[in-house]
Amino acid sequence: MFPNRIKQIAQEGGTVLNGWLHIPSTWSAEILARQDWDSLVIDMQHGMMGLDSAIPMIQAIQLGGNLPMVRVPWHDPGLMMRLLDVGALGIICPMVNTADQCAAFVGACRYPPLGYRSLGPTRARVAISENYLHEANEQILTFAMIETAQAMRNLEAICATPGLDAIYVGPGDLRLTLFGKGGIDVEEEAFLEVLERIVRVAKQHQLIAGIHTGSAAYAQKMMAMGFQFITLLSDGNLLASASSAILAETRSGKSGPAGKGQIY
Amino acid sequence: MFPNRIKQIAQEGGTVLNGWLHIPSTWSAEILARQDWDSLVIDMQHGMMGLDSAIPMIQAIQLGGNLPMVRVPWHDPGLMMRLLDVGALGIICPMVNTADQCAAFVGACRYPPLGYRSLGPTRARVAISENYLHEANEQILTFAMIETAQAMRNLEAICATPGLDAIYVGPGDLRLTLFGKGGIDVEEEAFLEVLERIVRVAKQHQLIAGIHTGSAAYAQKMMAMGFQFITLLSDGNLLASASSAILAETRSGKSGPAGKGQIY
Amino acid sequence: MFPNRIKQIAQEGGTVLNGWLHIPSTWSAEILARQDWDSLVIDMQHGMMGLDSAIPMIQAIQLGGNLPMVRVPWHDPGLMMRLLDVGALGIICPMVNTADQCAAFVGACRYPPLGYRSLGPTRARVAISENYLHEANEQILTFAMIETAQAMRNLEAICATPGLDAIYVGPGDLRLTLFGKGGIDVEEEAFLEVLERIVRVAKQHQLIAGIHTGSAAYAQKMMAMGFQFITLLSDGNLLASASSAILAETRSGKSGPAGKGQIY
Amino acid sequence: MFPNRIKQIAQEGGTVLNGWLHIPSTWSAEILARQDWDSLVIDMQHGMMGLDSAIPMIQAIQLGGNLPMVRVPWHDPGLMMRLLDVGALGIICPMVNTADQCAAFVGACRYPPLGYRSLGPTRARVAISENYLHEANEQILTFAMIETAQAMRNLEAICATPGLDAIYVGPGDLRLTLFGKGGIDVEEEAFLEVLERIVRVAKQHQLIAGIHTGSAAYAQKMMAMGFQFITLLSDGNLLASASSAILAETRSGKSGPAGKGQIY
Amino acid sequence: MFPNRIKQIAQEGGTVLNGWLHIPSTWSAEILARQDWDSLVIDMQHGMMGLDSAIPMIQAIQLGGNLPMVRVPWHDPGLMMRLLDVGALGIICPMVNTADQCAAFVGACRYPPLGYRSLGPTRARVAISENYLHEANEQILTFAMIETAQAMRNLEAICATPGLDAIYVGPGDLRLTLFGKGGIDVEEEAFLEVLERIVRVAKQHQLIAGIHTGSAAYAQKMMAMGFQFITLLSDGNLLASASSAILAETRSGKSGPAGKGQIY
Amino acid sequence: MFPNRIKQIAQEGGTVLNGWLHIPSTWSAEILARQDWDSLVIDMQHGMMGLDSAIPMIQAIQLGGNLPMVRVPWHDPGLMMRLLDVGALGIICPMVNTADQCAAFVGACRYPPLGYRSLGPTRARVAISENYLHEANEQILTFAMIETAQAMRNLEAICATPGLDAIYVGPGDLRLTLFGKGGIDVEEEAFLEVLERIVRVAKQHQLIAGIHTGSAAYAQKMMAMGFQFITLLSDGNLLASASSAILAETRSGKSGPAGKGQIY
Repeated sequence: MFPNRIKQIAQEGGTVLNGWLHIPSTWSAEILARQDWDSLVIDMQHGMMGLDSAIPMIQAIQLGGNLPMVRVPWHDPGLMMRLLDVGALGIICPMVNTADQCAAFVGACRYPPLGYRSLGPTRARVAISENYLHEANEQILTFAMIETAQAMRNLEAICATPGLDAIYVGPGDLRLTLFGKGGIDVEEEAFLEVLERIVRVAKQHQLIAGIHTGSAAYAQKMMAMGFQFITLLSDGNLLASASSAILAETRSGKSGPAGKGQIY
Repeated sequence: MFPNRIKQIAQEGGTVLNGWLHIPSTWSAEILARQDWDSLVIDMQHGMMGLDSAIPMIQAIQLGGNLPMVRVPWHDPGLMMRLLDVGALGIICPMVNTADQCAAFVGACRYPPLGYRSLGPTRARVAISENYLHEANEQILTFAMIETAQAMRNLEAICATPGLDAIYVGPGDLRLTLFGKGGIDVEEEAFLEVLERIVRVAKQHQLIAGIHTGSAAYAQKMMAMGFQFITLLSDGNLLASASSAILAETRSGKSGPAGKGQIY
Repeated sequence: MFPNRIKQIAQEGGTVLNGWLHIPSTWSAEILARQDWDSLVIDMQHGMMGLDSAIPMIQAIQLGGNLPMVRVPWHDPGLMMRLLDVGALGIICPMVNTADQCAAFVGACRYPPLGYRSLGPTRARVAISENYLHEANEQILTFAMIETAQAMRNLEAICATPGLDAIYVGPGDLRLTLFGKGGIDVEEEAFLEVLERIVRVAKQHQLIAGIHTGSAAYAQKMMAMGFQFITLLSDGNLLASASSAILAETRSGKSGPAGKGQIY
Repeated sequence: MFPNRIKQIAQEGGTVLNGWLHIPSTWSAEILARQDWDSLVIDMQHGMMGLDSAIPMIQAIQLGGNLPMVRVPWHDPGLMMRLLDVGALGIICPMVNTADQCAAFVGACRYPPLGYRSLGPTRARVAISENYLHEANEQILTFAMIETAQAMRNLEAICATPGLDAIYVGPGDLRLTLFGKGGIDVEEEAFLEVLERIVRVAKQHQLIAGIHTGSAAYAQKMMAMGFQFITLLSDGNLLASASSAILAETRSGKSGPAGKGQIY
Repeated sequence: MFPNRIKQIAQEGGTVLNGWLHIPSTWSAEILARQDWDSLVIDMQHGMMGLDSAIPMIQAIQLGGNLPMVRVPWHDPGLMMRLLDVGALGIICPMVNTADQCAAFVGACRYPPLGYRSLGPTRARVAISENYLHEANEQILTFAMIETAQAMRNLEAICATPGLDAIYVGPGDLRLTLFGKGGIDVEEEAFLEVLERIVRVAKQHQLIAGIHTGSAAYAQKMMAMGFQFITLLSDGNLLASASSAILAETRSGKSGPAGKGQIY
Repeated sequence: MFPNRIKQIAQEGGTVLNGWLHIPSTWSAEILARQDWDSLVIDMQHGMMGLDSAIPMIQAIQLGGNLPMVRVPWHDPGLMMRLLDVGALGIICPMVNTADQCAAFVGACRYPPLGYRSLGPTRARVAISENYLHEANEQILTFAMIETAQAMRNLEAICATPGLDAIYVGPGDLRLTLFGKGGIDVEEEAFLEVLERIVRVAKQHQLIAGIHTGSAAYAQKMMAMGFQFITLLSDGNLLASASSAILAETRSGKSGPAGKGQIY
């Protein structure tokens, strides 16, 4: 089994730049897998793919030489195990609010005696490593999402979960439950202090701290704060903003009667 | 039937900015349909979708309030008719090299007596217009691709085809057959003269002249030359370039050990 | 966000006629969406679609100008949230037997502080409303199914759940657990009294009362009883009965040797 | 190989009632296959399915105990052969306008020396008959569509094609090319005379005469005229009309404020 | 409803040979359904199919004249009910470790008053039996997987669950939790004693004992031990081993420069 | 672009063992791609996949480190070009009966000036080689199928087609048209002489000679005869025969009442 790249980068003190997939297609997945992302997450919580779409996307990410992970929609051990069997190399679990929830999540991703994952890595044994059974507990990554006020109250206990590798901040949900407002890339002091506490506690427990961001500038700010796993936007956001930018640029120089806007 | 937006824009002397779809997904299609594109083409010639993927993409483009067209893979009247029945509002036919080929293409998109399209607009009658049968010959657009040396020799005859609405330049193929080199957004004088001739002949026949471009700057240059239907890149190109740009921007400011590149 | 049509109709004292989808296809969904149904429910409990089929069906229903809702297969918050993110405007949850179950269900459909729905309306923000985050708690509908003897014992408590909009009777299951027999459109007095009690309690709590029916006649009877959300059959039932009727009518007038039945 | 039911019914002087599939789903296909249709046609010319959807629909029709055929989109021998290999028991070819076209069509459906079908009945050998190779030329049905003025001029020559089993009238296209108007179930005398001629010529050549109809009444009229293969509407039409009828019936008896129509 | 073949074979003292499906395709499913397997299980725990793929596979297995069952990924009543509604004739539930879990599993597969399955056998009523509602509780099979040390401690209590039909050994997981090693077809004495105890306890409770095996030899050994439901490998294993065998055999006789291995 | 492995093996005098795919699944494709096959052909002529299934299968074959080719259903330049754009590294064209047909086929696979392939290698440029445009004409393989009496009459002329790389014998069709009987692995002398002539003519034109076989023994015989590209069976055949063998072996040792056969 190839050593998990995310673990390597983090251990050397680097930062993982992670891509985020909402489009259910093996082609968009392969395009991004061949870019300079350190890892890619198929978002089955807020993305547009069911399991039948996600499975070949895991293949496509590996085909592109990249590292596939999945954010699952909920605390569903059956789905977590299944995605690992298909070849995901890490699971991000949303809404981990208590230490018990965290232990249940991590246990679903670890073979006994460390957990209760069922044995049957159908594709992983073929496509990841012949020795998968003995390497998986070490190489598969578990990310618990910290995104509620309750999770913040239980932060130390969650971070102390044996076998947990990383925590991942969902900034929109976290701010919504703490301060009653959503939003991403928020600069407000109180919120930044929350993030700093998360990084501090994560480091105390030797966990990678991760967060979702919406711009290069905020990503750099988060790196400076100590986050070592940074997601930038999503495939859909990138597509929309690239489209919007080139259309604006092209229309700006257009003489004569303009397009769509004016006519309808 | 809503008046065809492309015809309207062109008649008022404006320019259509057209998006290009290679990703087989209703989500990426809807994202782009909700952007400021005047029309969108599902590219079944060089794209990654079969018919089972293309059909719901036509639905998704209309859902996003945009105008769906399809580039077919070849001179296949059955496929052209079928995509029109599903609700495409125009067909781009590749490699139209002779007037006979052009007449066969246009005929496939027109009901008798103007052509030989078979009657059965299953979805179009429901989703486009109750009066579709009587409006289709007027509103459906036909784009013949001019992309070979042979087509250039037959340019006037092709453009004189009754019922043809537009010609569309495939610059890569055209340059390859004329000058032995591919490439897009080419500035070479001899090639620009070819494009100028195409625009001139198209206008003489009251046809819309269209072309595929790879940048806002070249698109503006083509508008200035008289092209009124301009495609910009493709969804896959936009996704890759947006991804590449934000990764470079983010990495540029990163201190400490770097990511992927350095470690492997 | 467009005001939820179901709420509007009910508030004005009208009755919603609701269609029911079992066929996994964007085409049958769009056909029905363009009919005179007030809303359409994709039935992921007893229907033939997985999530990969259901997602483009939500798009197709909106394309047809109709209001998409989903019945989920079970009390699964992750799936409920996800379908809302895709653009469903309401969730019907089966087998809500206790007030606690009801609160868990409603909470999954409401953003904090009213519930625990995770923030990430990927498609809803693009396709329903830019202001989705602030409108969703008010506009998204929650239907708790009353379909067991246990639910009847807890009826008042279930109906008192804050944030619940409606209850929905599954008559087959309800009769099976109350009287040991299934069946739809049942005229038996004891069962009708149960339905009357449900309507009464629903109205006391300002909830919409809904029910599944199998004929226009029974639907009218239920309207007269006070139900304001009436489902009629399903797409599969409609297709089978229309097919059966036209075949019988056609064969009835056939002279000479008959078809299938006689020959085999 | 089971003797082809269509041939049997026709030989005994009976009439085949045929269903027509536009919805790309194995569930709607199986529902109809379990009804009293004598055969079912997957319409790949004006329907919403590509090949990936059509293949499991052929399985579903056989599962329902019915006889699957396909109307192909155009004169494409590769597609005809492929659908036969999958298990279709007949092909309807559109727009057969000349005897040469008819011979090319029939040849694609017959193994040498009668035709040029390529040998490789992958699923048919497994699912239809172990002896498929020797039975197929006899049991597979070929329907040439007569639907243009040109086809009418060549009617005798087309009907004389060796190996042709049936002709099938596309009434919309036929009337459009003959009289400049579309329409189905047309009562106009001149058109009925055309149909009578077609039946007469078909019978002279021992061919089954088939036609598409839109109602039981017209179907009966066509039977009386001698057509022995009658299609009634399509799955989409049946679904829409059943939906429309039950909605109208239900709304008609509704008291109090009405639904959708009045409120918006 | 056809009497459940598995029950029949077991009651007569025979052994069921069961096939196992990991490939998401209706074609591989139909191929195996037409072989001499007594039943086929779609493995949604470790296989490559989501629900959208599994549904037409259930159709394909019935089409091939075989008996479809499903192993679900986890204790998810909604998914179990749904697969039964589609036409699965049995459910294998993984990781049944306590009597309570077993009762919850069995209850999801039984209509009231025996369980809490929701009424709505959409396809089963059409495709399995018109009288499905009254036959299902008797004919649908429930298999609880015994595959952990905890399950072994609770073996008698699990086997005493009313309505349970069978237990099924997952030998890899069972050995992993009991002895710290995985593996299949294990000959080690201590493990064989575990299996013997399972068979003994199952028989005491009139349950069918089942197990997964990896070879004909071990399958025979298990039959001799009293197992009456034996799975042999999976479709993927069979495909890989047949491919490997014929390649080795062919290459063995090859003269001249060899293939792949030597050149790269 | 990696040098085409098939060309390398053949040039060194070795033999390519080729696998054949009929099952529409990325999982079965990846399983076989990770076996010791030198190349794999997706059979779109007699297989069960449409284009939407074939595209991710091409990705899966490359993921498994193998070389993907496609047999197209017919002489359809648009489809050939498209599969090459997706990443197929060779095309097998069925029923090449004349030199003109062969030239049209080869031309569709070659960029100008050698042919008329349209420029747009969307995935190939990303996934195969950045320099694809300049390498494709050299590396993409063209296989013309020799499988009719007419092709045998034109054998020398077909083999003389500039740019053709290989011929591929379809033994079933060839024998059917030559001797009126189908069959594979045929030992009849007259047929073997035909094969010998094919190899001889191919070698005279520096073409690779290929053939489809049904067993290791016949494959070895064909190698000895000079064929350098040998297909063995198909995925479906391998699956069925492996299943049949293990069932027979297991049942053979079974005591007591037997399975399926006896009970029904």
